[in-house]
Amino acid sequence: MSCRLVTSDTNFASAFDVLINRKSINKYYINEIVTRIIAAVIDTGDSALVEYTRRFDLFDPIKTGLSIGNAEINAAVARVDSDTQKSLELAAERIENFHRRQLPKDFEINERLGIRIGMRWSAIDSVGLYVPGGTATYSSSVLMNALPAKIAGVPRRVMMVPTPDGVVNDLVLAAAHIAGVNEIWRIGGAQAIAALAYGTQTITRVDKIVGPGNAYVAAAKQHVFGKVGIDSLAGPSEILVVADSQNNPHWIAIDLLSQAEHDPLAQAILITDDNAFANAVADAVEDHLVTLPRVEIAEKSWRVYGAIIVTESIEEIPEIVNRIAPEHLELAVADPESMAVQIRHAGAIFLGRFTPVAIGDYLAGPNHVLPTAGTARFSSALSVFDFMKYTTTVASDPQGLAYLGPATIKLAEMEGLNAHARSLAIRINQR
Amino acid sequence: MSCRLVTSDTNFASAFDVLINRKSINKYYINEIVTRIIAAVIDTGDSALVEYTRRFDLFDPIKTGLSIGNAEINAAVARVDSDTQKSLELAAERIENFHRRQLPKDFEINERLGIRIGMRWSAIDSVGLYVPGGTATYSSSVLMNALPAKIAGVPRRVMMVPTPDGVVNDLVLAAAHIAGVNEIWRIGGAQAIAALAYGTQTITRVDKIVGPGNAYVAAAKQHVFGKVGIDSLAGPSEILVVADSQNNPHWIAIDLLSQAEHDPLAQAILITDDNAFANAVADAVEDHLVTLPRVEIAEKSWRVYGAIIVTESIEEIPEIVNRIAPEHLELAVADPESMAVQIRHAGAIFLGRFTPVAIGDYLAGPNHVLPTAGTARFSSALSVFDFMKYTTTVASDPQGLAYLGPATIKLAEMEGLNAHARSLAIRINQR
Repeated sequence: MSCRLVTSDTNFASAFDVLINRKSINKYYINEIVTRIIAAVIDTGDSALVEYTRRFDLFDPIKTGLSIGNAEINAAVARVDSDTQKSLELAAERIENFHRRQLPKDFEINERLGIRIGMRWSAIDSVGLYVPGGTATYSSSVLMNALPAKIAGVPRRVMMVPTPDGVVNDLVLAAAHIAGVNEIWRIGGAQAIAALAYGTQTITRVDKIVGPGNAYVAAAKQHVFGKVGIDSLAGPSEILVVADSQNNPHWIAIDLLSQAEHDPLAQAILITDDNAFANAVADAVEDHLVTLPRVEIAEKSWRVYGAIIVTESIEEIPEIVNRIAPEHLELAVADPESMAVQIRHAGAIFLGRFTPVAIGDYLAGPNHVLPTAGTARFSSALSVFDFMKYTTTVASDPQGLAYLGPATIKLAEMEGLNAHARSLAIRINQR
Repeated sequence: MSCRLVTSDTNFASAFDVLINRKSINKYYINEIVTRIIAAVIDTGDSALVEYTRRFDLFDPIKTGLSIGNAEINAAVARVDSDTQKSLELAAERIENFHRRQLPKDFEINERLGIRIGMRWSAIDSVGLYVPGGTATYSSSVLMNALPAKIAGVPRRVMMVPTPDGVVNDLVLAAAHIAGVNEIWRIGGAQAIAALAYGTQTITRVDKIVGPGNAYVAAAKQHVFGKVGIDSLAGPSEILVVADSQNNPHWIAIDLLSQAEHDPLAQAILITDDNAFANAVADAVEDHLVTLPRVEIAEKSWRVYGAIIVTESIEEIPEIVNRIAPEHLELAVADPESMAVQIRHAGAIFLGRFTPVAIGDYLAGPNHVLPTAGTARFSSALSVFDFMKYTTTVASDPQGLAYLGPATIKLAEMEGLNAHARSLAIRINQR
């Protein structure tokens, strides 16, 4: 059984604290290994990449080449059936449309006094997109990471993907092809992050690295942060479903399991104001588990991290949601909009009984790379903003400088920064 | 003498590489101390804050209280002369106006097929603003950090400022008052960052921490990253001035020194296409240094990190600028706009001969917290975006779900995520 919390119980506050303060992994052991791998890539470049790939991915990249070229990509695309190909294309089209709407606009404020101030957006020159290997290799993640970079206008978009035993994932290559990735390398792990951040003989370094990965990849990204930009560090998937008693318990149960099946560490939580409905969902979860192919993963997640919170009223729910700050929030209630306006912290909200989270994982259009572990309190989904930056501008003529001069000189002098003050005075006095 | 690079010299490429790859400090020793301080604040809260403040700031906060209250703030404000007060108010007004223009708009795309997708911005609940003590205590930095948070709509804005020997800085408190800071604590260093991230008996934790600080503060911010949000890590100030021979060399020289006087580690670079002008500026720098109060700092910076790059033509300059990706870029040329459009990477651009960088440090309106050390390649000035985040929304009705269903189910099945597929199928088939 997953755990059950009832807001009217005396121990609710402490049980809730335990629920939302899940421990993160101990990073010390990993950090040591990752530091060594990064140093090796800095020192010996490609030969370190070859060595680690032999050791961790169990094939010889000398035979295949480190890069995955057009012939190999085209062969992979040809192996993907046309239904899947069309589905990927529809997803890409919808993701592009949504992210195009995010594109920010430059502005300039032109003041009467000869002062113009503004803000100009530009794309990053190059980004590295990390795509994990193994069971967590998702073509949809390739689209979600690569397309915003393309829409933002990043000219060079480099993908790193491990190919354990040398086997490429056709779907991933097809998605990369659709998303317009320019370069693909068959390298994974901390060594891939090091190659992106520092470059090697054959790989030119990039300016920013995005994309999910295992604990080694996350540690390597944190390590190179500052040298290059990184996106936020993604944790295990989470879903919070708010459901009243008017839902089909089987629908809600499968929604909970749809995130639980990602990872044994994933967390699925139901909040409802009806105890009988809570029981019905718990039973429906058991029913679904019996027939679910990924039962082993989903069951571990549900038993260890799953939870049902029973409240006395619908009204107390929004504040509980805000304290959790979930990655995915599903509002399966009669009036989801009036609840949504009370939510301050959530990565993505899915409104109403016919909007399961899974449609956002693939096709709806918004990004599925979302803030986890409560970081929705201060961060957001991946977007075109992650691939852009802006430059502010100031332009002044002699009149504008005369207007701003006295106050600037006063403040600079008060702060003891005489050269600052003099750089204005010398122009105003024309000496 | 600062170093001189000439683009037509055979060794230019290697000399330029050395110039732009300045070493950062060794962080290992600092990390150990910072880890210990953070652990102590987590363990014992306020009493660790009292202990470290006694040791590092040399006064007893038990006598004064950890917090700086209204009476103390009002007394400080009363000690600030009215000219300075008015200058701070003008600066605040201009900074607010500029940052208000940055506020992003929500959007919703309402599709015919019963699918609505959108993006809703919201403010972070609480932020911590770190203000350094000592020689680098700038009232202007208080405005530049606190006002964007206020404009973004952050309800709780907490300031941490060390008061060495127990002495408060009137100007800093006056600026905090103008900027509408809600809480002020007389605590600095890694212990202030720990208190903001983890909370103590008297200080409630915040969601994000911004503001510059010394190496200990920077290390502590990096340490708590993930637990809370942080802004980018600021390095020493930099200025890059592009100037043709039609400038007054004394104006350009004082502009270079205006950033050099910040910090012995600051970097001031001139690029010009005229060797005689380069010599004239170098001479003018020596002239100014003689009469500059902060000569010791400015001279160290100029001698060790200063540089003059002489090119053969104006046309080759923009690409050199892009490779440096400077924090502050001043374009003192005949047609600054046509050069600016060729610049992809700069924190802030100051256009024309009457726009010294110092006006942007105080009053122009754009933020003076800017990306340093080449990070303008992938990051930007502080802005309202640093204090906001967004939630994406998806809403579907049965018709919309039927439209997106087949492709979503196909992709989920191809990725082996059966519960994802089932969460759609169960609704479409109404079972």
